[in-house]
This record gives sequence, structure tokens and C-alpha cells, in this order.
Amino acid sequence: MAVFSARSQLQALLDVEVALAAAAADVGLIPASAVDDIRSAARSDRFDVEALEADAANAGNIVIPLVNRLTETVAAINPSSARYLHFGATSQDILDTALVVQLRASKEDLAAPLSRAVTALAAIARAHASTPMAGRTWLQQASPTTFGLKAAGWLDLIARSHERLAAAFDRCMVVQLGGASGTLAALGPSGGAVTEAFARRLSLGVPDLPWHTHRDRLAEIACAMGITCGALGKVGRDLVLLAQSELGEAAEAAVPGRGASSSMPHKRNPVRAVAAFTASIRAPGLVATMLAAMPQEHERAAGGWQAEWKTMPELTTVTSDAAQAIAEAVSNLTVSPDRMRENLGRSGGIAVAEALALALRERLPRADAMALVERLSRTAERDGRTLREVASEDAEIQQWFSAREVESLLQPENFLGSAGRFIDRVLQRWSV
Amino acid sequence: MAVFSARSQLQALLDVEVALAAAAADVGLIPASAVDDIRSAARSDRFDVEALEADAANAGNIVIPLVNRLTETVAAINPSSARYLHFGATSQDILDTALVVQLRASKEDLAAPLSRAVTALAAIARAHASTPMAGRTWLQQASPTTFGLKAAGWLDLIARSHERLAAAFDRCMVVQLGGASGTLAALGPSGGAVTEAFARRLSLGVPDLPWHTHRDRLAEIACAMGITCGALGKVGRDLVLLAQSELGEAAEAAVPGRGASSSMPHKRNPVRAVAAFTASIRAPGLVATMLAAMPQEHERAAGGWQAEWKTMPELTTVTSDAAQAIAEAVSNLTVSPDRMRENLGRSGGIAVAEALALALRERLPRADAMALVERLSRTAERDGRTLREVASEDAEIQQWFSAREVESLLQPENFLGSAGRFIDRVLQRWSV
Amino acid sequence: MAVFSARSQLQALLDVEVALAAAAADVGLIPASAVDDIRSAARSDRFDVEALEADAANAGNIVIPLVNRLTETVAAINPSSARYLHFGATSQDILDTALVVQLRASKEDLAAPLSRAVTALAAIARAHASTPMAGRTWLQQASPTTFGLKAAGWLDLIARSHERLAAAFDRCMVVQLGGASGTLAALGPSGGAVTEAFARRLSLGVPDLPWHTHRDRLAEIACAMGITCGALGKVGRDLVLLAQSELGEAAEAAVPGRGASSSMPHKRNPVRAVAAFTASIRAPGLVATMLAAMPQEHERAAGGWQAEWKTMPELTTVTSDAAQAIAEAVSNLTVSPDRMRENLGRSGGIAVAEALALALRERLPRADAMALVERLSRTAERDGRTLREVASEDAEIQQWFSAREVESLLQPENFLGSAGRFIDRVLQRWSV
Amino acid sequence: MAVFSARSQLQALLDVEVALAAAAADVGLIPASAVDDIRSAARSDRFDVEALEADAANAGNIVIPLVNRLTETVAAINPSSARYLHFGATSQDILDTALVVQLRASKEDLAAPLSRAVTALAAIARAHASTPMAGRTWLQQASPTTFGLKAAGWLDLIARSHERLAAAFDRCMVVQLGGASGTLAALGPSGGAVTEAFARRLSLGVPDLPWHTHRDRLAEIACAMGITCGALGKVGRDLVLLAQSELGEAAEAAVPGRGASSSMPHKRNPVRAVAAFTASIRAPGLVATMLAAMPQEHERAAGGWQAEWKTMPELTTVTSDAAQAIAEAVSNLTVSPDRMRENLGRSGGIAVAEALALALRERLPRADAMALVERLSRTAERDGRTLREVASEDAEIQQWFSAREVESLLQPENFLGSAGRFIDRVLQRWSV
Repeated sequence: MAVFSARSQLQALLDVEVALAAAAADVGLIPASAVDDIRSAARSDRFDVEALEADAANAGNIVIPLVNRLTETVAAINPSSARYLHFGATSQDILDTALVVQLRASKEDLAAPLSRAVTALAAIARAHASTPMAGRTWLQQASPTTFGLKAAGWLDLIARSHERLAAAFDRCMVVQLGGASGTLAALGPSGGAVTEAFARRLSLGVPDLPWHTHRDRLAEIACAMGITCGALGKVGRDLVLLAQSELGEAAEAAVPGRGASSSMPHKRNPVRAVAAFTASIRAPGLVATMLAAMPQEHERAAGGWQAEWKTMPELTTVTSDAAQAIAEAVSNLTVSPDRMRENLGRSGGIAVAEALALALRERLPRADAMALVERLSRTAERDGRTLREVASEDAEIQQWFSAREVESLLQPENFLGSAGRFIDRVLQRWSV
Repeated sequence: MAVFSARSQLQALLDVEVALAAAAADVGLIPASAVDDIRSAARSDRFDVEALEADAANAGNIVIPLVNRLTETVAAINPSSARYLHFGATSQDILDTALVVQLRASKEDLAAPLSRAVTALAAIARAHASTPMAGRTWLQQASPTTFGLKAAGWLDLIARSHERLAAAFDRCMVVQLGGASGTLAALGPSGGAVTEAFARRLSLGVPDLPWHTHRDRLAEIACAMGITCGALGKVGRDLVLLAQSELGEAAEAAVPGRGASSSMPHKRNPVRAVAAFTASIRAPGLVATMLAAMPQEHERAAGGWQAEWKTMPELTTVTSDAAQAIAEAVSNLTVSPDRMRENLGRSGGIAVAEALALALRERLPRADAMALVERLSRTAERDGRTLREVASEDAEIQQWFSAREVESLLQPENFLGSAGRFIDRVLQRWSV
Repeated sequence: MAVFSARSQLQALLDVEVALAAAAADVGLIPASAVDDIRSAARSDRFDVEALEADAANAGNIVIPLVNRLTETVAAINPSSARYLHFGATSQDILDTALVVQLRASKEDLAAPLSRAVTALAAIARAHASTPMAGRTWLQQASPTTFGLKAAGWLDLIARSHERLAAAFDRCMVVQLGGASGTLAALGPSGGAVTEAFARRLSLGVPDLPWHTHRDRLAEIACAMGITCGALGKVGRDLVLLAQSELGEAAEAAVPGRGASSSMPHKRNPVRAVAAFTASIRAPGLVATMLAAMPQEHERAAGGWQAEWKTMPELTTVTSDAAQAIAEAVSNLTVSPDRMRENLGRSGGIAVAEALALALRERLPRADAMALVERLSRTAERDGRTLREVASEDAEIQQWFSAREVESLLQPENFLGSAGRFIDRVLQRWSV
Repeated sequence: MAVFSARSQLQALLDVEVALAAAAADVGLIPASAVDDIRSAARSDRFDVEALEADAANAGNIVIPLVNRLTETVAAINPSSARYLHFGATSQDILDTALVVQLRASKEDLAAPLSRAVTALAAIARAHASTPMAGRTWLQQASPTTFGLKAAGWLDLIARSHERLAAAFDRCMVVQLGGASGTLAALGPSGGAVTEAFARRLSLGVPDLPWHTHRDRLAEIACAMGITCGALGKVGRDLVLLAQSELGEAAEAAVPGRGASSSMPHKRNPVRAVAAFTASIRAPGLVATMLAAMPQEHERAAGGWQAEWKTMPELTTVTSDAAQAIAEAVSNLTVSPDRMRENLGRSGGIAVAEALALALRERLPRADAMALVERLSRTAERDGRTLREVASEDAEIQQWFSAREVESLLQPENFLGSAGRFIDRVLQRWSV
């Protein structure tokens, strides 16, 4: 994501240094003119990103060489202003606050596609509320469901993930300011006032105490991203399965150049759905890293904090990419009700066998009903006939049901239970 | 944890079957007398757990053989009642709802020790609000902090983790009831009413739709547990470090037989703190598994759901054990303010060097101030003298400060900044 | 696995204590009679496992209370023998060596099913060397392959995993003996001799130095298990996909009670394949834990070692279960060449489109050839006709090929390339 | 790492396309002149990396747009050569083979620092073979060890990790060439010959069959990297702990600008050791991702393969950085035998208590000996006296030992057991 590029991170760090100086000026600790000098120096294009990164490896983090360079730059403008830089702060104050600012900037890249996906799925859920398709458990056809219910399930899952992610972001939108050991000692009695002004300048909240080695807020965002990737991966996984050549029930819209194969001209690969599923394979390891990084020592970590640096941006990028992939996939989905019905019928009606079993349970002991239907299903499967035919001709069945009753029992449309009600509830819950 | 033993799980499954039968009776689908028969059969001591587990491996899950056995047991009591068992449900309805019930039962085993830890830490934060100790960054002594502030940080972290965990539990307290394909087709028009009654019987909520392959609620609990383990691991890690022979600043209370060594009679190992840190090593992998399990196919998973079965109970146990370990450790902590002060002094005052650097920055350019203090620190370190001595004798320093001023600047008590205020805020936030 | 039950672990620990005593006697440090007394006391049924586990939580590990209890038990037999127990060892010496012994005992439970799977897959590869089926990339039909080649690929993957796992086991079959700090100080000049005898008694190797905090050998086994689970999961995944109702190309043999559904009598769930895939979801997190546990402090860990205790047995069990599941699945696989051919044909020959594209590339620029075939494929797909029909009638195609040539080009059997040779090489490599 | 930059990857892909064309020419399938045209077009600076990456997201992978662009570029040179490009291959053939080539290129960046670390550690092991220091278990002082033995343990661990990593690389150095479905159908009878020539051109091996969805070789490298990071993290962890202000036993050499603090001028942070420990926190999650990606569907994955793309390069980079960090840290380590001895003495001799316990066990029952030493240790600790003093004055001790004997027993140098022998064996094993 652009917001996590080396250049963008640099600017975020510089912005935070400016906000800190401005806060110090707000409470009268440093002259306002110094802030102007610092602000005019704090432009990322004035700095050599690669040189800073090389120095960072030596220094332990990038803020140390950055403050040195920035001090020189400010001094070149006005030597007396250079001393007011990085006032009372420690490197981690700047890095952590910049990360919070960057995360805030990334929020829309996550929220927009998630909202788009929810809207598109609501339309699908409505349009296909009565489109029967095979339910599938263990990847075997089970009793029927509707494509609308499947879409409503995806919607509910994504909407809930989005809500959780947004809440996690909100809880994390606080500044970091503690100074060397987290006491703000270098700010003397002004610690509280500077922190308030710093937060105001950045439109962030004030935590009760510095959180240098208390990383649960970041871990919560990481987890919410991991859950979101899992949710998007579930949708992607289902789409890939529905798009299989042998099923053909749903496909990403054909776009020139998309999903082509370098050797097979006829291929239309489900690249968006796969992208989302890929994210769900990658996210768990990245989340695990953020959790494993939590036990950070004393007042500043010797490893855990550093392990976050690449992990958090990567996880955010993975999540955002997955959200966009699913948004695009479901916004341009080619749905084939015909193939759904055809596949449902292909089992010879075995998928609706449960309806028959249930009707029989009103008349026979449960085990006998199950055994009877199992026998009929096996016969139909073996002989390549429909369950309706086999059942209608069966002497035992004829004791209880007419051929017409059997036919009606085995219509998918008559065996959809609460599917419609579930869809309505989900659409109402999320007001879509 | 006891609630996840094979026997307890079996009883939870049976309780859910009884609740389902009762719900069906509540809405008039089955006779009330059948519920009584089912209830009297549904006692875990009537079943052979090991035989059921062996059959489960064959059948795909434990509910399939359990329903068979239970049907036989009910039939032995009253044959006509046996047909009313497992009414309209699929195995996963029973397994998932039982898991929710088990999780609810485990909640107190998590909440109680977390509360206990918070209470104990509040007492420590108050008692040691003015106890100076070395702040430590990168495991190097930095400017001073107080043990009260360290405890307040632990408290805040644990309290927030607890709050998050409780909220995750609340959001997950819903029944699972969808039948074979998640449409409740087998319940016909009564799907909604049975679900309401089922939820009422179990004092659980009703989800908008069945969540057989929408696992975000469980994943959220798993994540909240992972974060809690990370938080407890941070406290454990700090305690282990403070307990090092060379620091000796805090130690778990000596208990006969605890932390003994089989070969070294003098050892007093920090077994509770290590137990918590151990949990923080194990939890990330378990959380990752729960997230990796999320992309569950169609209406019932072919792998993901099954991967949760051992993982969720293990993660709950790990978290509960860690919470109890930290509760015990901080409730019986031997704190040594003397060792803290001694260690702080051992650096010859270098830990307070920042105070001198700051005072100098009022008089010198930032870089010059830093360079001067660095020179003095290195001299003090090299000669094994205190920074106060070296600084007092330094000609450049003498330009700016008297010996008495130097001494005052280098007193840890005079360089604690906002530590007290931070503690107050944390105690007030959590009302402890 | 039985070898990791609490009772079995206890016996393994006792066996190691006996071997240590015997080794000390072998080199003359203690009287041989003491070994007899220790041996007769060291029977796991003499100990209360649950009491030991409760004490272990307090003591830090189970060997501490075990040595206490064992000392009492030996003393009851002969007080003078009790002092010769646990001679020169630290708890971790006993626990680690017992783990190595337990791992060795588990080896056959891993090796046997892996071998069985390889044998069964070799038979399948031979039997179906010429059985054409759709190749599938991105879960879309691609050019054809054979079921024999697919089986050979599975075989190769499993055989290589097995080989790697066996090598990892071999490298880990060393005793642990270092005493309190890993110097064997307590054994004075006899350290080397006792270690040799200890290893000889247990038929294990002697490491160059104690490895209390050097855990790479265990991590290597864990990784080899993780790779094996991934390999078995790949096979399981493919089997689940092939078993889909809509494909029906391969199925686990029907066994009464296996893969049944509690609500759907016709279901035949691929429970073995799913079990293997489940393992591949769980193993990564467990392996990650073993790796995360590696940075163990100084001479004995404060967390990392303890994190291994539950993880290593669980991972071994997961791997063994997966191996058995796949062994059973592939040993009793119902293969449907008819469904394979039917599915291959279902695309109207589009799966063999590449053959046509290749033939055209001899005559046209690559891009033109690809574009032509893509146009024909889309037409065939849109009109529900076969590619053969559409191509035969196409004016541009007719410039280059006769209808008969088109038909031949589009026969799957004529487009299998090196499949047979690949199978032969794999069978020869593994001599199966 | 440079070899994994976008530009380097592009060149690797182009090199593989050239090798493939050359191989086809070697066996006479295409004219040699076409290879020259392709080679002169295949220069990464002719391509717009960002445009290719954007197209890759649409197409599913980067080779698809690359082959299109490359075809255009070759056609501009010589239209008739353009048709000979990407002959018989599928995108994954190119991507996987390029990855193998890139991994080979990265090997030295891993091997060199690992070798350097081993050499430096051998020198330390020799130099400090007799330098006593506190052994530490559970981060508590235990009986003494030597710094040489600690270094030998690190050496052994790193050397073994290196050996394992090299072997994993060797086993993975094979080409990928299978075409669309892994049968090499598009190469007709020339499949074998082209593959041999392709491998020869790239100095790689020939696998028995294409491994598009058999990823164990890559997973093995990933695991070996994970173990290496764990090993390096162990060394880093120990170094950070030894460098603590309160221990001061070892420190990374002071380098201007390294490990400085932005607020604390006196700090000398262990940045190299922390970098290695950081790697050991990140690697487990990345390895887990590689393992989770293993169950790849049929003949080409829909997610798993794609999950490897960013993970494998990142893991290689993490491992290489960690290796370089430790190589630098141990090559320039400031060791303080004085501080080691001082710390060892600080316990008042309690660390050597085991020596006394052992001597007593020759005279007293084990439990009595342990209890006596425990009592003396507690007394010494409580009174702030040395164990030697307390023991010498104790009546019970005086029964068995003279004051001089007590003193000798409690000398660390006299209680080092097999430390020297262990060092020798490790140095001999690795011939360093």
C-alpha cells in the first residue's frame, strides 16, 4: 500500500516530529517560530531514504538518523531552531505515533472495498433469494439451499468482520508519548499538556499512559485483519469451488487479460477469488508474529517491537488487497441459476433425500426411515436413475405416499425452510 | 480444563440434545413426555466415551455415533420417544452449540484470575508509586521509572485484554441451528420458533442465520485469548527478568516445593512467570490455526471445522493457566525496593544522564549537549566512577552548573516526570 | 498416541532414571545392587500420575516430584540405594532423553502408514498409467493428464517426506546428559564414561555436548512432520475435490458407519481425506510454536522448553493420524475412469484446446494462434457445442487441418506427453 | 535482498525464458537464431516493472504479461523468432525455475555470514575455554560454566543449522518444467530431451516429474531457514541478556552511531543481537505460511502457490539479515571475564552450592544433603554473607569438611566437569 512505502513512512515520521514541536509551542515550551522552521525542513523529498535505511540498521531504528539529518536541515534554515526538535521524545514515540497515523490513512482502503462487497452481496442475496442450488457439506451435495442465502451468509460474515475491524482501529487511535523510559521526565511538569496538544494536533486520542511495551491495541487490529482475511478467504474459497469447470455456477466477469493462461487460451481463472483465498493463507502467520511479538521487555523491547515493523504494514496490505479482490469479484459476478439447477438435479434428487427421510420419520422409527432412504439412494445411484423414480416404484414407499406426493417432496423449492427469513434478517441487520 | 474433558464434552452434547428436544416440545412439534425420556437417557455416565471417540473417527464426528447410542438408550426407556431425538438438526448444530456452552462455562476460569491479577497489581501500583527503579530499554538501563508505573502498565494491559475477551465471549453466545444445509428445512415453518425456544432453553442468543461455515465469532475469541496470553506473557517476561539473580528486584513468594531444582538446592525458579511466558509462546500458533481454519467450504467444512476441535479447548486451557499463573505471581510478589535502588545506582548515575542532557540543551545546541553527556558517560564508565563525580569536575559542566545542581539533576527521584499521574489515571480508569 | 499418554511418559521417565543408574554402575560410580533396587521401584503403576502432575505445576517440571517419590519408593526397598538416584543429572536430562525415547517409539506409527500409502499409490499409478482425466489448474479444467501421473506425484511427495522425516529422527536419537549447567560437573572426571554407558543402555547416540538450549534437532523433526502433514494434506485435498458429487472421480471405499451424516442418509463423506487435510491446517501452527520456542535462554530456558512439552506430542499425533488416514484412503480407493472421461468430455473438448493451439503455432504467429483458439473456445462454450465441431467448421482452421486431423488433435489420449515416463521414473526411484 | 528485488526477479524470469529457448534449440525444436533474438530482447531494463506488476494482478501471475511484452520485443527484432518463445511451458514453469535460480543466488548471502560466525565463535570458544561464568537456568544463577562452552554450544547449533540449510538447498536445485498440466504434452516426444537441456543450461538438476503442486522441497528450505533463525535468535537472546547493564559480561563492539539512543546519550544498545532475535520472532509465522500453502490443488494451486510468492523471499531476507547480524556481533564481541567472575561471586557462592551438595551426598542421604545445603544457602542469602563463610562455620559441615576443603569445593574452577572436553569435541567436529 502506498501509505506504507518508504517515502510515505518518512513523511509520516516528519509530520509527527512537526506535530510534537507544534505541541511544545502550544504550551509555551518552545518558540512558535521554531515550529515554522522545523515544518519547512520536514519534507520527505529533502531526505535520502536509502541512506536513512542503511543508517537505521546500525542505529537500531530509523528515527535516530532521521532526527540527526532533520536537525542539520533545520539548522541550515535557522540554527537556533534546531535545538527544539524531538523535544522530550524517544524514537519509539515518533515511530509508534507515525504508525498510528499511517494505519488511520489506510483505513479507507480497507473500509471502501468491504462496503462495496457488502452492497454487491446484498443485491445478489435479494436477486437470488429464490434461486435453488445444492447445499454442500464436506463438498458433497446435501439438501438444497439458495444462492441468496449463501450470499447473505457471506455478507453477514464480511459486515461483522468490517465492524470489528473498525472498532479495533478506533481503539488504537491514540498517540504514543513517553520519552526515554515512559515517564515523560524530560518534559517535567508539562508532560500532560504537551501530550494533549500533540494529540490535538494529530486528531488522535490520549492514552492513560505510554504503551511502548503494551501492544494489545496493535495486536487487536492485526487480529481483526486476520479475521477479515479469513472471512474474505471463505468467500474466495466458495467462489473458486463454484467456478470449477464441472460446476460452473458462478464466475468472475470476463475481463480482457484477466485470468488468462500463458499456455491455455480457453482458461478463465478465478484470479480475484484466489487472491482473497491467498490472503487467508498468509494472514495467520502474520497475525501469529504480531502476537508472538507482544511480550516486550521492560520499557522498550529487544526484539518484539522490531518484529512488528515489517509485519504490520504487510498484513494491512494483504487485507486491503483481499478486500478489493472480493469487492471486485462479487460486484461483477456471473451467476448461472441454470447450472445450479442442473447440478442439483444431477444427483438424481439424492440431495433432497432428507425431505423424504423426514416425511417418513412421521410414519416410521427414525432408524428405519433412514435405512429405507439410504437403500433407495444407493439404488438410484447404482442404476443411474432419479430418486423420484426409484422411490415412486418402491413398494414400501407406496404404502405411505403417492407418486405425486413423492414428486412434491423431492422438489428443491419445497425444501428450503427458513432460507428466505434468514436473508431478510441479514439484510435488515446491516440495512442494505 | 475440566469443562473440556471428554466426559464434560459428552455431557454438554447431551444437554444440547435435551434442549433441542425441549424446544421442539415447547412449540408443539413433539410430545413433552418424549423430552422427559430423552432427558433421563442423556446422562454422560451411561455412555462409553472411548467407544464413542473410536466411532467418531470413522463417522467423521462424535455426534453421529452419540445420536445412535442415545437413540438406543431412549428406545430402551420408551421406543416411541426415540424418534424425536436430534429433531431437524445436523451434527454440527449440536457440536457448535455445545462448544458455545462449554466456552461459557470456562469464562469464569478466565475472568476470576484476570480480576485477581488486576486487584493485586493495583495494590502494587499504589504501594510502589514512588519506588524508583531503573527504566530499561533494549534491556539496558535507561532513565528511571517507578515500580508503581511498571505495575500500572501491566494492570492496564491485562484489564484491557480482559475487557476485550469478555466482549468477544458475549458476541459468541448464540446457538447454532441450521440442519443439514443451514436452511432448517427439516423444521418446515417452525424453524424460527424452535430456534427461539432452543436459545431460551440454553440462555443463549439467536443469530441471524446459521453460522456453520462463518467462524469469525470463534476466531474473535481465539484472538482475544491470544492477545491475553501476549499480555500475560509480557508481565511474565518482565517478572522473570526482574527475578534474575543479578537483579533480584522482584521474586515470586517462596512456597515449599515451588521452583525447586532437582540438582540445585538453592534455586528459586520463577515458575509462575515462566508459565505465563510459555503460554505467550504457544498461543500464537494456536490462534493462527483458528484463523487458518476460517475458509470453510460451502455449507459445511472439509477440514477447517475439524481443525478447531482440539485447538479451541487447548487455547482456552493455555489462556486460563496463564491467567492463574500471573494472578498467583503478582498476588504474592516479594518486591525489593533496596535492590531496585542499588541497581539504579550501579550505573554510576548514567541512567539519569538524560536529565543532565536536557538541562544542557537549555544552554547548548542539542548535538553539543548530547556529545558532552556522552563523553562524560564514557569517562565515568571507563573509570568506574559516578557520573555525578565526573560531571562535577568537568570544566565545561562547571560553566553551567554548580556541584549541588549536578547532584540534584542526577537524583532519580527528581526525574520521574508524569509517572504518578499515569498511575492515577490507570487506577481511576479501571476503578481499582 | 499411546506413547505420549501420561502413563507412558511416566514410564519413559522411569526407564531413563534406571538407565542412568545402570550407567553409573557400569562405570563403577554406584553399586550394581542399587540399580536393581531402583529398577524394581521404577514401575509407573506404583505412582499416582495425577498427583505428580499437580506437583509438577508447582515445581516447574514433573521430574522434580517424580524423583522425590521415586527416592521414597527406593528407600522403602533399601534406604542405602536411594542416594544413587538421578546421579549427576538435572531434570531436563531425564525429560529430554525420555522424549527422545518416546519419539523413537512413535516412529513406526509414522513409518508404517507412510509405507502403506506409498505401496498403494504405486499400484494405482501402475493401474491407471493410461487412464486419462482432466488436468486442473486454478480448479479449472486444463489439458489432460492421467490418474496414474496424479498418483505418482502423490507417491513421490509422500515418499520424499517420509525419507526426510526418517533422517530427522535419526539425527535426533541422542541422549541428553549435562547436569545442572550442562558441564556434567557433578560427575567429575567420569562425565564422559557415564554418558557413553547411558547412551549404550538406551541404544542412543552421544552428542558432542549437552543440548539443553540447542533445540534444532527437535525443531527439525517438527518441521519434517509439518512437511509430511502438508504432503498428506495435498493428497487429502485432491481426494476431497475428486470426490465432489459433481466430479465423482474417486471415493473412499464405503464402510458401514463411515462418513455417514446424522441427517442425510445418502451422504458418503470423505472422512479420511478430510482428516489428512485437517492435519495440514493444524500442523503449521504447531511447527511455528516449536520454532518460536527455539531461542532458549542460557543453560536452561524460561519458557521455550516448557512450550515444547505439549506441542511435540500433539504434532506427532496429528502427523501419525494423517498418515493413517491417507494410507487407509488410498488403500481402498474407488476410482471411476468413466467419470474421469465423462468430465473430460464435458468441456466439449476445451481442455484439449492447447493441442490445437500448439499445432496452429507451427503455422501462425503465437499470438494469432492463441487468439484463434480462444475465439473457437468461446464460441463452443457459448453455443454448448464441442470444440471439435466448432473447429472443424471454422474456415480459418480448415485452411490448415482436415476434420479428421482436428478430431485426432483433440483426443486426450494423443496429448499426454511424458506422463508415462514420469510415472516410470517415480516408481523406479522408490523401487515400488 | 537484492536478488529478490522486482528488477532482479524480472531478470531471473527472462534468463529462464532464454534458457528454455536455448534448450529447445539444443534439441533441434527451434532455430538457434531465434534464441539469439530472444536473448537480446530478454534484458530487464527493456521492461516496465511497475506496468508488469499491475498487469500481473489482473492476469494471475507476472509471467503472462511478461511473455506478451517479451513476444512484442522479440517480434520487433525478428517477427519469426517470436513464435519460439515460452515453448511448451506454463507460467509456473518459469516462475518456479526462476525462484530456484534466485534461491541459488541467495545461498552465499546465507552461507558466508554463517561461516563467519562459526569461525569467530571457534576463536571465542578457544580463548575462553577456561573463563568461568555463572551457568544460568530459568535465568537464575546455577552452577558455573565457561564462556568457552557457551560459545561452543552456539557454534555447534549454528554449524548444524548451516549444514541442514545447505542440504535443503541442494535438494531443491531442480528445474520446473511440466507445461499446462504437468505432462509436457506440448513438447510431444521431446519432453525429456528439452528438460535435460533446460537443466544443463541452468546448471540445475532434473526432477523425476514436475512438482507444480508438490512443494516439499521449498518447504524444507523454509523450515531450514526457520531453524536457522531460531538458532541465531538463541545466540542473539543470550547476547542481549549478557549485555544487560547489570551483567555487562559481553557487549557488541562500540561503533560510532550504532545502538545510540535518540534521547539517551549513554546508551549502547545491542542492535545486532536484537536483530537476530527479531528474526526468530518473525520466522515461525513465515514458515507456517509456507507449510500452510502446501496442500495445493490438482495440477496448479488456487491460493497456496500464490501465498509463497512474497513469503519465500521475505523469509530468505530475514534469515540472511539475522546471519549477518550474528556474524558481526560475535566477530566484534567485547568479553568481560572480570564481570563474569564478579557476577559469579555476587551470589556469595550459592551458584556452586551443588558442589557442596554432591560432596555431602557421599556422606549423607540425598535428601538430607539437599536440605542441609538449602538451609546454608538461605542463611547466606538472608545474612548477605558468602556460602563459604556460612558453611565453614556450620557445625554439621565441620563434621565432614575442613574450612580449606569447603573453600576448594566452592571454587568455580574446580567445578567445571567436562566443559573443556565438550569444547574440544565441537571444535573437532566442525574442524574449526
